[in-house]
Amino acid sequence: MRIGVLTGGGDCPGLNAVIRAVVRKGISVYGYEFVGFRDGWRGPLECDTMPLDIQAVRGILPRGGTILGTSRTNPLKLEDGVERIKQNFEKLGVDALIAIGGEDTLGVAKKLHDQGVKVVGVPKTIDNDLNATDYTFGFDTAVNIAMEAIDRLHTTAESHHRALICEVMGRHAGWIALHAGMAAGANVILIPEKPFDIDKVCEYVESRFKTRYAPIIVVAEGAHPKEGQLAVQSSELDAFGHVRLGGIGEALAKEIEKRTGKEARTTVLGHIQRGGTPTAFDRVLATRFGLGAIDAVHDGDWGKMVALRGTDIVRVSLEEATAELKLVPIHRYEEAEVFFG
Amino acid sequence: MRIGVLTGGGDCPGLNAVIRAVVRKGISVYGYEFVGFRDGWRGPLECDTMPLDIQAVRGILPRGGTILGTSRTNPLKLEDGVERIKQNFEKLGVDALIAIGGEDTLGVAKKLHDQGVKVVGVPKTIDNDLNATDYTFGFDTAVNIAMEAIDRLHTTAESHHRALICEVMGRHAGWIALHAGMAAGANVILIPEKPFDIDKVCEYVESRFKTRYAPIIVVAEGAHPKEGQLAVQSSELDAFGHVRLGGIGEALAKEIEKRTGKEARTTVLGHIQRGGTPTAFDRVLATRFGLGAIDAVHDGDWGKMVALRGTDIVRVSLEEATAELKLVPIHRYEEAEVFFG
Amino acid sequence: MRIGVLTGGGDCPGLNAVIRAVVRKGISVYGYEFVGFRDGWRGPLECDTMPLDIQAVRGILPRGGTILGTSRTNPLKLEDGVERIKQNFEKLGVDALIAIGGEDTLGVAKKLHDQGVKVVGVPKTIDNDLNATDYTFGFDTAVNIAMEAIDRLHTTAESHHRALICEVMGRHAGWIALHAGMAAGANVILIPEKPFDIDKVCEYVESRFKTRYAPIIVVAEGAHPKEGQLAVQSSELDAFGHVRLGGIGEALAKEIEKRTGKEARTTVLGHIQRGGTPTAFDRVLATRFGLGAIDAVHDGDWGKMVALRGTDIVRVSLEEATAELKLVPIHRYEEAEVFFG
Amino acid sequence: MRIGVLTGGGDCPGLNAVIRAVVRKGISVYGYEFVGFRDGWRGPLECDTMPLDIQAVRGILPRGGTILGTSRTNPLKLEDGVERIKQNFEKLGVDALIAIGGEDTLGVAKKLHDQGVKVVGVPKTIDNDLNATDYTFGFDTAVNIAMEAIDRLHTTAESHHRALICEVMGRHAGWIALHAGMAAGANVILIPEKPFDIDKVCEYVESRFKTRYAPIIVVAEGAHPKEGQLAVQSSELDAFGHVRLGGIGEALAKEIEKRTGKEARTTVLGHIQRGGTPTAFDRVLATRFGLGAIDAVHDGDWGKMVALRGTDIVRVSLEEATAELKLVPIHRYEEAEVFFG
Repeated sequence: MRIGVLTGGGDCPGLNAVIRAVVRKGISVYGYEFVGFRDGWRGPLECDTMPLDIQAVRGILPRGGTILGTSRTNPLKLEDGVERIKQNFEKLGVDALIAIGGEDTLGVAKKLHDQGVKVVGVPKTIDNDLNATDYTFGFDTAVNIAMEAIDRLHTTAESHHRALICEVMGRHAGWIALHAGMAAGANVILIPEKPFDIDKVCEYVESRFKTRYAPIIVVAEGAHPKEGQLAVQSSELDAFGHVRLGGIGEALAKEIEKRTGKEARTTVLGHIQRGGTPTAFDRVLATRFGLGAIDAVHDGDWGKMVALRGTDIVRVSLEEATAELKLVPIHRYEEAEVFFG
Repeated sequence: MRIGVLTGGGDCPGLNAVIRAVVRKGISVYGYEFVGFRDGWRGPLECDTMPLDIQAVRGILPRGGTILGTSRTNPLKLEDGVERIKQNFEKLGVDALIAIGGEDTLGVAKKLHDQGVKVVGVPKTIDNDLNATDYTFGFDTAVNIAMEAIDRLHTTAESHHRALICEVMGRHAGWIALHAGMAAGANVILIPEKPFDIDKVCEYVESRFKTRYAPIIVVAEGAHPKEGQLAVQSSELDAFGHVRLGGIGEALAKEIEKRTGKEARTTVLGHIQRGGTPTAFDRVLATRFGLGAIDAVHDGDWGKMVALRGTDIVRVSLEEATAELKLVPIHRYEEAEVFFG
Repeated sequence: MRIGVLTGGGDCPGLNAVIRAVVRKGISVYGYEFVGFRDGWRGPLECDTMPLDIQAVRGILPRGGTILGTSRTNPLKLEDGVERIKQNFEKLGVDALIAIGGEDTLGVAKKLHDQGVKVVGVPKTIDNDLNATDYTFGFDTAVNIAMEAIDRLHTTAESHHRALICEVMGRHAGWIALHAGMAAGANVILIPEKPFDIDKVCEYVESRFKTRYAPIIVVAEGAHPKEGQLAVQSSELDAFGHVRLGGIGEALAKEIEKRTGKEARTTVLGHIQRGGTPTAFDRVLATRFGLGAIDAVHDGDWGKMVALRGTDIVRVSLEEATAELKLVPIHRYEEAEVFFG
Repeated sequence: MRIGVLTGGGDCPGLNAVIRAVVRKGISVYGYEFVGFRDGWRGPLECDTMPLDIQAVRGILPRGGTILGTSRTNPLKLEDGVERIKQNFEKLGVDALIAIGGEDTLGVAKKLHDQGVKVVGVPKTIDNDLNATDYTFGFDTAVNIAMEAIDRLHTTAESHHRALICEVMGRHAGWIALHAGMAAGANVILIPEKPFDIDKVCEYVESRFKTRYAPIIVVAEGAHPKEGQLAVQSSELDAFGHVRLGGIGEALAKEIEKRTGKEARTTVLGHIQRGGTPTAFDRVLATRFGLGAIDAVHDGDWGKMVALRGTDIVRVSLEEATAELKLVPIHRYEEAEVFFG
């Protein structure tokens, strides 16, 4: 049997660990052959492949990124996208596909499966916002990187009596902000799920300054103030009506300075959150996902995605997997609120 | 209400995070008072206490160890141990106790509860071998420290064509060896649950050397060879009958050199696995355990221990908690075996 | 003898190590007493002090920031600043001062010394731009933090075929950009000392993309394009005439996207570069600086600053110390240029 | 011109950075060709070579170990060793050699140079014990790894009231122990240069325990007690006459327990000190050494070794380079002694 493998969407620490596990077990235990598709769905669309054998996956376990490359190419947006992929699989003698990616990638995988292609999915979202699994690999790494950055900010905050803001990833779900902020002892955590009250934020800031310690605010990139507090929206103006300064973090700093008279500084972690070597948690999870995916292939259990439930690797339908986003529930946010101010 | 807190047994990254969460929520939300007992059960036995207020727990979240100190003192081994503790609680006006520790500590907590003392337990075992919870804090930190050490060994192993052995913690359960070995791409992993065949180990070593790469062997301190291969046991002789060289790691190196003629070197990580700042996973878990414990106190749900099930913090009886050891199941070991050799 | 200690200017990993060494040796070897002044020159101006004994410096060696706090208060900007400090020293019975800081702080120290105050200086600049010493503590830590961030960006750059820009500290001197960029294998390094040619930068970017690898550009916050390429300057417009997006990094990304049609993303490390625990190099250097400073006090060698020359701690006059900025010499930049593109 | 490159002796973080710099500048600036010799002097002796071009050195900058492999093979121990190497150079069309290694490797390089072979040397000793250079790459990485391990031990030492011993590298010179111990705030540092007084060590241990903190002892593998305190020496018995337990660290623990009645535990860092990614200091130093070496080749300045003096890369004769070991001078040890106990 000849199996194609691709990685789609944003890169994530652990992708290489999945690829390695799939290939190692696929070859040594099941005797399969593999084809690597380059840059997500662009690979099967354009027949851009690379060899994927034991040698190709040697030493990639600790490496971030993906040796297959990735892209946001979406075949569903092409009239004949799905058709071309099916034809190319035939042409390349590819019997089945393991698609590693997030909502979009798995959505395409589901569509292919509906059309009779043999597909198994592996979930990937650094934001941890996929509902069908307890955790996705990459998330733990991102949280640790953000936590270490916030740990560093503490010493400066205390030495300078200056409010420090750390903007982390999370467009729709605030999991990284919640976990990193809770782990690093943030004084305020702002997430997309709960529009914030800027007055309340400034209260926390001022009460914190009274302790001779300075406040650390962790804000998810997708966080935003309450309706009433929103200034005119425009591509040139940020949430508070200032000239846009690269995101909610900068905007928040300006607003806090204006309202409290205290200095505020912002750090935007950006891409360093998704780069570098994965944590042990992510390497083990990604490896187990890879093993689970190739087992599903072996069982001919198509249209499924591997997922983590407790400490077990289970299989769920691609349907269920992509059904809805996993947002931070209010009770988890309230746990963190105990430590605000 | 006045609540005592103690930490018992070996120290573990995350203990301070539990203490902080208990005290922060206990004071700010429930309005409790706290007494810190020094050095595990020695504290209540000898009335050795320290103040435990907001100020005392400031800045301890990222710090390893425990500000309360710990010890292996076991009141059950004293004729009047339990009695003295009850008397001292009365003397100090302590209404309830939060005991943070492993099997022994929680065993004492259970006994006290049986005798009418109001107790809530928080599980702590760096080996992750407690059956009632998916994970315990400290484990993830230990696994990451071991993984980083093994990552480092890879480069030397490959440059020197020398077998490298890394001895990690795990007297009865091989969880740290399994996860660290799987995460760092070990060529062989040896755990207490599965007595190893030295001939098989040497086969892996030799097959690995054929690839121009050198083997990395991760061995839990409690791992041991099969019956038949055991030499005379004596305090002076190790498992292979060599003069004892400080553990199974050293013994294994000697035996591999003898049998394969290849150089072998051992690193014993020892206490560095349980020291230093906790990972984000452990800080979040420990914080949530602390919040869960003080909530149990507030609910008057005595004789319970907090535990992790999936992503939820639940409560189990101290009875259940200490019933049996959680060992590595064979199917988890077989996952790792795919990558041996 | 009673000695005052203060830390001025931006905080820097290693400040606490200096304070600890000064106090430990001062008390145990020379039998001195110490007074800690809070928040740089604000302390002596306002008699804001804190106790500084063995207990106060326990455990601070690995901690970033400064237990004394810091500020940019400059007594020379007050009419009677120097006078007030002299009076307060008399009032507090302070016989001599150890001033730990950068150009400004040491400038004040020099002025005080000119007026007969017994002062010894310890150099502190995270940018490593002080001419009288080979290195200053904090620099090595900042470079390692930046390097680790850039290491992380590599994996993403390669997986996404996207240009990644990392903006690091360095307003006037490019030492952090040079060392971090050289250490992390940057494809282009831009420093304030050498106005860059945007056409050349885009050439490097495009040639790099041809290798299937993506370019990493490290830019010091003070770097800027050549005269000819400068757009109208205004507080609202950045170096390229775009609406300001928070610095040269963002501006560069926009310009590269415009000129090459390739995606570009920016990470601004900001304050995480100056926070957290110091590296071994910085802890040893800071400790030796502290020992050297208290020895200078013991020798009554006033008006001097400690400095590193090779592996030796020497003394230079505060005059010489603050004479001129240490910029990156052209031959050092040319070393790095070998690896551009 | 065709240039051979080899790495000899123990591996060291930074070797790959040297190789990369040599090849990158050699090809892009000077237009040379390169041959990689495998496993130190074994390569030229047995004509075991590998291609060494731009592609071969891509991505190796952050990687520990050496892509060329290394060994302790010494041609001077073979009757016709030097002769064979000269013949093989002719056979392979190798015009000159860059030898990267320590005393032994550079000793052979010097002998070859005496016999008319065109050689340039690059110093490599993780122990930093080469007299002709201020620092060698790899040392800073080893010191940081050891420091981080000792940082971790602090938390356990304090929680358990247990003396912790950390054995680090350093057979003849105590630089790693001195710097790591000074950086991590060790209570005692023992180095080969100064035979220790076990009574004094135990005094420090006991005085430290009086502070409710526990002592951390850093000991170089080559450290040993004073003559008078030496028990019978034998391969089976350690320095104190106990059955050998794998080094001075274990022996010291046993002796301290015997004399003070306090628990003592040992961690032996071993090979993790020389593995893994280099620090920024080592990557920059190794890169500059590589650039300096290829420049020396271009200048035809044979028989020289590159060295660091202050912040400059200079050239010294191989003669001078290997003349004598750089030991820790007494005044540097006395700096550290201020913090003992």
